[in-house]
Amino acid sequence: MSNLDALEFGPDGLIPVVTQDARTGAVLMQAYADRAAIERTLSTREATYYSRSRGEPWVKGATSGHTQRVVSVHLDCDGDSVLYRVEQTGPACHTGEYSCFHTPLLEGDAPDTGLDGTLERVHATIAERLTTLPENSYVARLHAGGLDRVLKKISEEAGEVLLAAKNGDRAELATEAADLLFHTLFALAEVGVSPGDVAAVLREREGKSGLKGPKEVG
Amino acid sequence: MSNLDALEFGPDGLIPVVTQDARTGAVLMQAYADRAAIERTLSTREATYYSRSRGEPWVKGATSGHTQRVVSVHLDCDGDSVLYRVEQTGPACHTGEYSCFHTPLLEGDAPDTGLDGTLERVHATIAERLTTLPENSYVARLHAGGLDRVLKKISEEAGEVLLAAKNGDRAELATEAADLLFHTLFALAEVGVSPGDVAAVLREREGKSGLKGPKEVG
Repeated sequence: MSNLDALEFGPDGLIPVVTQDARTGAVLMQAYADRAAIERTLSTREATYYSRSRGEPWVKGATSGHTQRVVSVHLDCDGDSVLYRVEQTGPACHTGEYSCFHTPLLEGDAPDTGLDGTLERVHATIAERLTTLPENSYVARLHAGGLDRVLKKISEEAGEVLLAAKNGDRAELATEAADLLFHTLFALAEVGVSPGDVAAVLREREGKSGLKGPKEVG
Repeated sequence: MSNLDALEFGPDGLIPVVTQDARTGAVLMQAYADRAAIERTLSTREATYYSRSRGEPWVKGATSGHTQRVVSVHLDCDGDSVLYRVEQTGPACHTGEYSCFHTPLLEGDAPDTGLDGTLERVHATIAERLTTLPENSYVARLHAGGLDRVLKKISEEAGEVLLAAKNGDRAELATEAADLLFHTLFALAEVGVSPGDVAAVLREREGKSGLKGPKEVG
């Protein structure tokens, strides 16, 4: 039995598909697929769905160019839902928004995700805004100034970290470090480096020190 | 018209709900809700669904204790799918797996593992070594040079980030950004600032932008 036989299609022959940006973690859309669409997705790595409104197969981006290269496909525990993790080109939503889930019903306070989770969220936001370039966005303004402007900010914020540390001002150091990290993430996003790429370097060093485990860096 | 009137329930009175871990970004499950379940979720911030198999409302974790505190709720562009972002207690899946989407149909060819706690781990290692000062440790040697030496490294690494970015060298940028982050964490540890303090500054800005959700930073 192939894994495909574990798929539980509904009475209409469709199964819901959740699509997630593999780079940013954002949930981009939720659509449907029939068996042929799933098979095509698996064989081509082009995210393929079944359009309920048009009653036909739908290769994402075939007309808009906003394709999704499929990184992985997972089935849920009871076989009636599928997760595509994709590398999204351009916005996922036909409205031009990055994600289809852009209408808030309940607003969130940003969850306490620790430094790593927060930085990933910030990077995802920057990467998204570099795609959509919304007006009034700091990201869009900074981007418009060109790469040099972002890099000057890194230099400036590094200097402010130095001063705050020399002054032993903890609150100021936290603020300036946040600025430095933000603009470093910005430069990464501009050049197409993910936080995971940076983490991989740090993790490799943990390994290289010939030692293992979290306490072994440096 | 309340936003709830924009919800397009299916002929069975249900709408698909995608549930995402707000801390990690992982897609945890895909289930269904009726209007009452959505209303209860919005008013209590406890993720509530409608169980198709049991034919009844279902407050996630009511029996297992694996509750989901709802951070935000979004509706998709055509109103027929809902996204809950939650703080998950314990595993989301009844099998004991963290996410229900644990059966691979197509394995990732380039899984980006993300920061994944790496920075917090590195900071913890630095802080520990600043206490124990083990011989042959880079941390101990750098610390012995005094705060200025650490800060000079930040300045130097910031410069190297600038050059790598200007050169468009992604691998080099990842390496230099890792160096910059490492030495920034080092300065934080020297002065007694935690990664959480920095994350709090970044989160406060997410809130302050007066906007909502991951896409609203910056």
